[in-house]
Amino acid sequence: MQLSDIQKIHGQFCKERDWEKFHSVKNLSMALAVESSELLELSQWLTEIESNNPSADLLKRYKEELADIFLYLLRISEVLKIDLLESALSKIEINGAKYPLDKPSI
Amino acid sequence: MQLSDIQKIHGQFCKERDWEKFHSVKNLSMALAVESSELLELSQWLTEIESNNPSADLLKRYKEELADIFLYLLRISEVLKIDLLESALSKIEINGAKYPLDKPSI
Amino acid sequence: MQLSDIQKIHGQFCKERDWEKFHSVKNLSMALAVESSELLELSQWLTEIESNNPSADLLKRYKEELADIFLYLLRISEVLKIDLLESALSKIEINGAKYPLDKPSI
Amino acid sequence: MQLSDIQKIHGQFCKERDWEKFHSVKNLSMALAVESSELLELSQWLTEIESNNPSADLLKRYKEELADIFLYLLRISEVLKIDLLESALSKIEINGAKYPLDKPSI
Repeated sequence: MQLSDIQKIHGQFCKERDWEKFHSVKNLSMALAVESSELLELSQWLTEIESNNPSADLLKRYKEELADIFLYLLRISEVLKIDLLESALSKIEINGAKYPLDKPSI
Repeated sequence: MQLSDIQKIHGQFCKERDWEKFHSVKNLSMALAVESSELLELSQWLTEIESNNPSADLLKRYKEELADIFLYLLRISEVLKIDLLESALSKIEINGAKYPLDKPSI
Repeated sequence: MQLSDIQKIHGQFCKERDWEKFHSVKNLSMALAVESSELLELSQWLTEIESNNPSADLLKRYKEELADIFLYLLRISEVLKIDLLESALSKIEINGAKYPLDKPSI
Repeated sequence: MQLSDIQKIHGQFCKERDWEKFHSVKNLSMALAVESSELLELSQWLTEIESNNPSADLLKRYKEELADIFLYLLRISEVLKIDLLESALSKIEINGAKYPLDKPSI
């Protein structure tokens, strides 16, 4: 199972439900921001340490919110015909130039 | 190049910069929400149609924001030892039960 | 009833429930972002025109989300001893310098 | 200077710049979420204690972001003809029913 498989399955899922007409980049960006805040909500009153040591129930909720964010991310990428893996790799390079290592890593 | 490759490369990138100490789930969730809003900002004054037809410059900015969101998503998944692809697949199933098709798709 | 009255009533409300220990600027900023996304959620699949013409039920939900955002805004301002009205006025001046009028308004 | 004064001044400011055509509830909700995340960004890598003890520069940035959020909150309230102070008071009552005190406050 690869990223492109999930993207295809989810694209088909949305198509079957006639959701494509709602899936403008503007609307999908809103939906993605909403899901990101649902993730945020899970740790808003926790300490950092607590957020890293979730109960089984909290872990399940983390998983669901991460999945929701990921699915919208895949949808926007599809609408814009952007290759997410390639973009991420290229962003790591940009970040590498922005935050160079003082000394080379071993 | 697969999702797990990017995740390893980016994990190593963060490790080399000694960023792991900042990467609690709480902090990473904040960072992910911030990046999601940077994507949101790009279309906030556009119509839906305009958001779908970006200039070359806007497309480049979309790409960078999507990459930033994706990289934080990979980081949180790594910290929580969550398999993002498996979670997404399982979420599509949950959504399928929530939004059943009236008639089977062809 | 003035802004400062609401701020006092709400501050007292939080104090009585022993919530002050949770109310760091970091946590309150997260809570405010979460509430802002709950507002966002209400119009995510609406057209702009639809968002401006809410049903009675949607209007009620707008009202509640706006109130939630406002209450957290008042809390953060209180924790930081920031005068919200004065800050807003000063920000309008900054914006005026940033977006000058081509010709004076009548 | 009262909330309603700021609201009037800012409404006039937007009108003079012909921004009203962009100010649908949908768009303003996006703008408010974007500003909330700019506030969030300021404390994303800070501890809670650090977030509560800002330098002069950070305090200035907190102030500006709080003002931006407040101004969009006033705009949405104006577009929807919602009384923010009255809504906040009514929300405190709802919260009081949701989170009752075990014993009456003195």
